[in-house]
Amino acid sequence: MSSSALAFAKQNHPRFLAELKDLLRIPSISTLPEHSEDCRKAAETVKAELKRIGLEHARLIEGGHGPDAHPLVYADWLHAAGKPTVLIYGHYDVQPPDPLDEWHTPPFEPTERNGNIYARGAVDDKGQVWAQIKALESLMAANKALPVNVRVIFEGEEEVGGETIANYVASKPGDLKADFALVSDTELFAPGLPTLCVGLRGMIYTELEVRGAKTDLHSGIYGGAAPNPFVALCQIIAKLKDENGHILIPGFYDDVQAPSADELKAWKSLPFDEEEYRKTEVGSKVLVGEPGLSVMERTWARPTVDVHGMPGGFTGAGAKTVIPAKATAKVSMRLVPNMTPAKAFQLYKSYVEKIKPVGVDIDVRLIHSGDACLIPTDNKYVKAATKALHEVWGKDTVFIRSGGSIPIVGDFDKHLGLPSVMMGFGLPDDNLHAPNEKFNLKNFELGIDSLIRFLEEVGR
Amino acid sequence: MSSSALAFAKQNHPRFLAELKDLLRIPSISTLPEHSEDCRKAAETVKAELKRIGLEHARLIEGGHGPDAHPLVYADWLHAAGKPTVLIYGHYDVQPPDPLDEWHTPPFEPTERNGNIYARGAVDDKGQVWAQIKALESLMAANKALPVNVRVIFEGEEEVGGETIANYVASKPGDLKADFALVSDTELFAPGLPTLCVGLRGMIYTELEVRGAKTDLHSGIYGGAAPNPFVALCQIIAKLKDENGHILIPGFYDDVQAPSADELKAWKSLPFDEEEYRKTEVGSKVLVGEPGLSVMERTWARPTVDVHGMPGGFTGAGAKTVIPAKATAKVSMRLVPNMTPAKAFQLYKSYVEKIKPVGVDIDVRLIHSGDACLIPTDNKYVKAATKALHEVWGKDTVFIRSGGSIPIVGDFDKHLGLPSVMMGFGLPDDNLHAPNEKFNLKNFELGIDSLIRFLEEVGR
Repeated sequence: MSSSALAFAKQNHPRFLAELKDLLRIPSISTLPEHSEDCRKAAETVKAELKRIGLEHARLIEGGHGPDAHPLVYADWLHAAGKPTVLIYGHYDVQPPDPLDEWHTPPFEPTERNGNIYARGAVDDKGQVWAQIKALESLMAANKALPVNVRVIFEGEEEVGGETIANYVASKPGDLKADFALVSDTELFAPGLPTLCVGLRGMIYTELEVRGAKTDLHSGIYGGAAPNPFVALCQIIAKLKDENGHILIPGFYDDVQAPSADELKAWKSLPFDEEEYRKTEVGSKVLVGEPGLSVMERTWARPTVDVHGMPGGFTGAGAKTVIPAKATAKVSMRLVPNMTPAKAFQLYKSYVEKIKPVGVDIDVRLIHSGDACLIPTDNKYVKAATKALHEVWGKDTVFIRSGGSIPIVGDFDKHLGLPSVMMGFGLPDDNLHAPNEKFNLKNFELGIDSLIRFLEEVGR
Repeated sequence: MSSSALAFAKQNHPRFLAELKDLLRIPSISTLPEHSEDCRKAAETVKAELKRIGLEHARLIEGGHGPDAHPLVYADWLHAAGKPTVLIYGHYDVQPPDPLDEWHTPPFEPTERNGNIYARGAVDDKGQVWAQIKALESLMAANKALPVNVRVIFEGEEEVGGETIANYVASKPGDLKADFALVSDTELFAPGLPTLCVGLRGMIYTELEVRGAKTDLHSGIYGGAAPNPFVALCQIIAKLKDENGHILIPGFYDDVQAPSADELKAWKSLPFDEEEYRKTEVGSKVLVGEPGLSVMERTWARPTVDVHGMPGGFTGAGAKTVIPAKATAKVSMRLVPNMTPAKAFQLYKSYVEKIKPVGVDIDVRLIHSGDACLIPTDNKYVKAATKALHEVWGKDTVFIRSGGSIPIVGDFDKHLGLPSVMMGFGLPDDNLHAPNEKFNLKNFELGIDSLIRFLEEVGR
């Protein structure tokens, strides 16, 4: 395995890393309106870099509405006559960093430690976006051309629903004409094990608001007669699933497509130690979930319900004896192939309205949603990817799914007719969406090499 | 009914009100450490006023520990030879004002509107403390002496557990020697209806913390296998009481002392319209609670469980797909006569530990507690109070209980052997502990008159 692009990447690695750190310093938190300008700054940084390395038509695409709207970044290079066109996707936005006090070093001051770089967005997804750009730069610098036609589309709303890119893909499919998509927002199954993700869960993210009294009340004076919205919320949430994690919403499992026997067999042969996973990744006393199913089945092939926060009432230090007028729960559900977000939301909403306790009003709001997807593995792009990965990592690729959601992969399929190659380089313990998010520096380096070799292979 | 003290009060009412506004402008929020200096400022203001009106030995008493410790204010006047000694109690601290956006005028800018004064602490308890002080000032100004011996003790931790005064009463009972206590921190049963409160619920205020994974996790990657602390909390809380408000903790009702047949009969004759109460005070669709019991029984004579807030996880705008490592619920229980906080907490803690879902650890913390109490109504101080109230209000006094907790009343009984006369002038719709707290200006005026006449009557 050798190419002048790989040599360029090796030589320039320290600079690549320094540039990534600059990008990580921008707190482009898409869910928080006060960071709107930071999101734009990250978009401008990425756009300028795409232009600098030689891509054409680099521009920001506006089009979203409201405080969560952040521009898309587009660029292309379409001079590889007769070669396939790849649509390269990633996102420059990041999750909020809270709880801040659990970070060992500040989330927006990228820090190298133990062979990793720690920062919010290190692996999800700025580090992987930068690996994509640096692969393109290396190919372009070494050959004054790219081996394939390339369109790049990066978004800034992945963590907040991805409305702008979804609308863009649906309304202007001709702008993104390609043969396949390359998505780098996933992880290796284990350190050193080349991995392609071929399945994603979908999701619905909701807010469940419960209102009782017209105003906050004193729990001494009114306790025993006034409805307590938190108690009502707890009564509702306790009925969403049983203590084995089985969802109690009628009809919720009706459309669930079970994994194939082949897929289940492959999952069983993956290097996975459930006890090690419990101890080092989750760190809980026991794992929860549906009995009789493996962790892979539970997290890749079964729907879930999770509660992320319950704003309202008094949350400060000390004691306040208030019965709040309202309380809210942020509730999301992961969906699996063949389920649809619209139906799942309707089943959930109807059920909650049916089981709500007396004395309260409820409001069930859909914040965002995404389709689940399964990628066929028998196309030439997947084959090229496994060949490239074998060369760089020295091992056969494993096909896995992810429990997470990348709604755009479903949109690429639906609106553009593109299969996606989900080639990502995170690790299972990278703490994405959590304090101390990191990206392994070796994976950053081999990720760039893998992407270089993959594009060379596709263009052969 | 006439006395020169009443005349003095009438003449000086505008000044009394202006002074009260000055006190209300001090945000003496005892539960928030950042307002510690404001609590001290309120204490100093009250102490200075007690000295100015002619009381002796005015001083602050320190003794608490930690950020919630705020000084007691003491003063006395003990020159009414042969007359009873009254221990006058109130508190200068207030509840936090949040949610701020629901206040029509800022909580610490007292505003007159519709015959009320609106401010945090207007009725709970600064307005009533000021009525006590102004009654003493009027008596002293008119007679150059008081009709009874007086000790005043005001605290600044009523909203945060009252540790300093509890310790002081328990450890130095000789400092507060008296014949009875006068507590002004309660309300009239209905506008214009003189009321003495003769029973209070006790309480335990707890934090229930649930811990699952060792760190926050992504709900896509781990959802279905990692325990969710909010879901576990909801499962626990849903089992604390049934949907009729009946508490499910084994043994919780064992010690409950039922109201006497006489008391129940008196409650039935109170001017109370349950539908009106639901609509105008609570403002909920229906009232909740144990079927077959009146609102008075539910709120005065039955224990309750309420949840005040559930800090943890993601509570901002938008969406964050986190499974938090931990979540907490602020849970309190009101107790009724014959129940003890220690036993109630133990029953609750044991039950919660027994029903906790698999996969999580829990921690049950007692933040503070107070005894319930019932005051005998056949003593001469209660008789003097009813006589004074009849003169000022032109009506017979009703004896009620309160669902709230004034733990110090139990301590006065236990450590000082004092019966308490709970003579307060709030109204049921005064929004205490809620946005737009108010105090009726007429009640402030008649409250001062009532206190003047009561002390004159006791000293006769």
